[in-house]
Amino acid sequence: MVDINKWEFITPGIPDIYFAQDNNPNMTKEEVRCLTLCKVRLKIDSVVYDIGAGIGTIAIEAALLAKEGLVFAVEKNPPAAAIILKNAKKFGVNNLRLIRGEAPEALAELPLADRIIIGGSGGRVKEVLSAAQAKLKPQGRVIVNAITVETLATAVKQFAAMGLDEVNTCCLNITRVKQAGRAKIFKGMNPVFLIVGESRGK
Amino acid sequence: MVDINKWEFITPGIPDIYFAQDNNPNMTKEEVRCLTLCKVRLKIDSVVYDIGAGIGTIAIEAALLAKEGLVFAVEKNPPAAAIILKNAKKFGVNNLRLIRGEAPEALAELPLADRIIIGGSGGRVKEVLSAAQAKLKPQGRVIVNAITVETLATAVKQFAAMGLDEVNTCCLNITRVKQAGRAKIFKGMNPVFLIVGESRGK
Amino acid sequence: MVDINKWEFITPGIPDIYFAQDNNPNMTKEEVRCLTLCKVRLKIDSVVYDIGAGIGTIAIEAALLAKEGLVFAVEKNPPAAAIILKNAKKFGVNNLRLIRGEAPEALAELPLADRIIIGGSGGRVKEVLSAAQAKLKPQGRVIVNAITVETLATAVKQFAAMGLDEVNTCCLNITRVKQAGRAKIFKGMNPVFLIVGESRGK
Amino acid sequence: MVDINKWEFITPGIPDIYFAQDNNPNMTKEEVRCLTLCKVRLKIDSVVYDIGAGIGTIAIEAALLAKEGLVFAVEKNPPAAAIILKNAKKFGVNNLRLIRGEAPEALAELPLADRIIIGGSGGRVKEVLSAAQAKLKPQGRVIVNAITVETLATAVKQFAAMGLDEVNTCCLNITRVKQAGRAKIFKGMNPVFLIVGESRGK
Repeated sequence: MVDINKWEFITPGIPDIYFAQDNNPNMTKEEVRCLTLCKVRLKIDSVVYDIGAGIGTIAIEAALLAKEGLVFAVEKNPPAAAIILKNAKKFGVNNLRLIRGEAPEALAELPLADRIIIGGSGGRVKEVLSAAQAKLKPQGRVIVNAITVETLATAVKQFAAMGLDEVNTCCLNITRVKQAGRAKIFKGMNPVFLIVGESRGK
Repeated sequence: MVDINKWEFITPGIPDIYFAQDNNPNMTKEEVRCLTLCKVRLKIDSVVYDIGAGIGTIAIEAALLAKEGLVFAVEKNPPAAAIILKNAKKFGVNNLRLIRGEAPEALAELPLADRIIIGGSGGRVKEVLSAAQAKLKPQGRVIVNAITVETLATAVKQFAAMGLDEVNTCCLNITRVKQAGRAKIFKGMNPVFLIVGESRGK
Repeated sequence: MVDINKWEFITPGIPDIYFAQDNNPNMTKEEVRCLTLCKVRLKIDSVVYDIGAGIGTIAIEAALLAKEGLVFAVEKNPPAAAIILKNAKKFGVNNLRLIRGEAPEALAELPLADRIIIGGSGGRVKEVLSAAQAKLKPQGRVIVNAITVETLATAVKQFAAMGLDEVNTCCLNITRVKQAGRAKIFKGMNPVFLIVGESRGK
Repeated sequence: MVDINKWEFITPGIPDIYFAQDNNPNMTKEEVRCLTLCKVRLKIDSVVYDIGAGIGTIAIEAALLAKEGLVFAVEKNPPAAAIILKNAKKFGVNNLRLIRGEAPEALAELPLADRIIIGGSGGRVKEVLSAAQAKLKPQGRVIVNAITVETLATAVKQFAAMGLDEVNTCCLNITRVKQAGRAKIFKGMNPVFLIVGESRGK
């Protein structure tokens, strides 16, 4: 059994149920969270933005992994933002800063980033990516999690326009197998496209 | 717009919403229904069993396509069985017979079948397949829709043991794209394995 | 065993191996072909265009199903076009016309269509859709099979701009299960998005 | 660009192309590797077995992450085993031991394990799991990567029989998006089921 007051593992993958979620209907699911953090490639001291952080699941995991880094969780929705703080406390995370607001505006005052994770962009992924590019250090990495056709199409186009290096796109289609009576039943999850790239520079 | 009193198409694929469903939570979704009927390969005069027919969506489509054939919809659950009749009436189908009961017992009195579709087996897929084999004409085809690991494993093993010909197995993983505000969002459906085979004989 | 000189079934789903393919590397796979024909909804007398017909697998199946209709297979690549004729002969199809050329230009002389299937558009899906709209009868149906992000994005946008009715988009992700020694191994196929809509009118 | 002589990231996810592969046709793909390591949950000092290690991609990543631990890569195929050593050298890994042999026999002399990853079992997953259970420390975790129906079915059944805790099963279906000319094309990968569980204990 996991004692959530000390998630003692060095790999991502906190089960969904260990996060406070309250009445918030959405969360980035465990498997998507794992692959997002893997594809964005953390270092121990990474400065990370989690834009559209929701209830903070990706930000929490990033903060636990990048122990000497700093994670900025940007979330405009007040109830979700409150749950981020609840989850940070629950997991004993103290290198996470909650930014109550919306990208791109909310990014203005933040220090430059090593890693930018765009989980939600409120339909403004193009502007958010522009702002992200301005904030990204050389050889920094940015990832977009796209759950709509529009975000996928825009992100793919913008990544090319931004001249990012090592662009990599995949779609993650997870089936969970759940016990239902005596049988183990297949449950499809919503697919998510991950688009990741790296800024050039020395 | 579809006028459901005359589904006038010669291909499977009645949209889910055109079926009466009442409070029944489950139905075989359009895309799975289509591929099930395609893989089992109907003729105009096929005698078809739909075992574990649920609310009858596969049986109705089979009956509409195999106009000169006869479809036996076998369903043990009384409320679901009632909806089958409602759907048969709704689509003007009169070559469908409702068999209130459970396979394998309920198959005893039925005429031999050209096609047997096993949508639900109440965890008894092995016995149901045995009974199906006894009822299947030469060059008849049988298909299992498996939504659990157990049914998949048993069906694959039994198809080999039964000496069926042309055994073909696939998994159908459908994502629907739904309008949500201004965006088109990806919605994962539950995957279904289809295992189909053909009886030998002249 | 299927005798391909008389595909005697009333449902789509000819196995891939029964088509002549020669050295042509691509073909629309059985399951995608089935669902394309189901979603576009054939009538017995439909006039169908298959644009970017490749080696003709969809066109052949459409012609076999719509026995009293007429199928125009539009293909610009000469070797592929030659295989279409070979397949038409193989399956005894005589209500298929090969149009050697490229859409939209090649559509100019054709009679109006009940159904338009766009399997390939050479990256010109926007123009092809415009031309398709001009050729589509009222309550006609058009479907795009998208295997790239660009075609998916353009088709989704154009379908909305064209004011089509009953627009429906899904992604088909098929896993085939293949015998490999004693085991049945999972083989992923390439996913295909299907975008279908209907023209308004009386 | 990644300098493979110093993979400096604290998350899994070395791109496939950075591994020596020689003529070996199979490798655990990046996304599957990531999720396998996440689901098995490493600690900095974990003792890990990688059974059926192939060319060693999972073992290498595990060794890089669990810096103070020890990884035993068990592989019976001599050419693959040779590539493991090549990859260990390439990534500067020195906490990896190659065990040339086959599970369960090859496990006899190994120290107890915190984590057991069964990537390949040569069709003997039941015996391998028995042996794994005997070697697993309390609160140790074991994961099976199943690419066949048979391994999936056996693993699911054995995990229940072994009384493992926190059993979790999912299927990972990855689509990669590849540049092809001007377009980004969807390429389906082979799905893999991951079955993971934890041994009970004080």
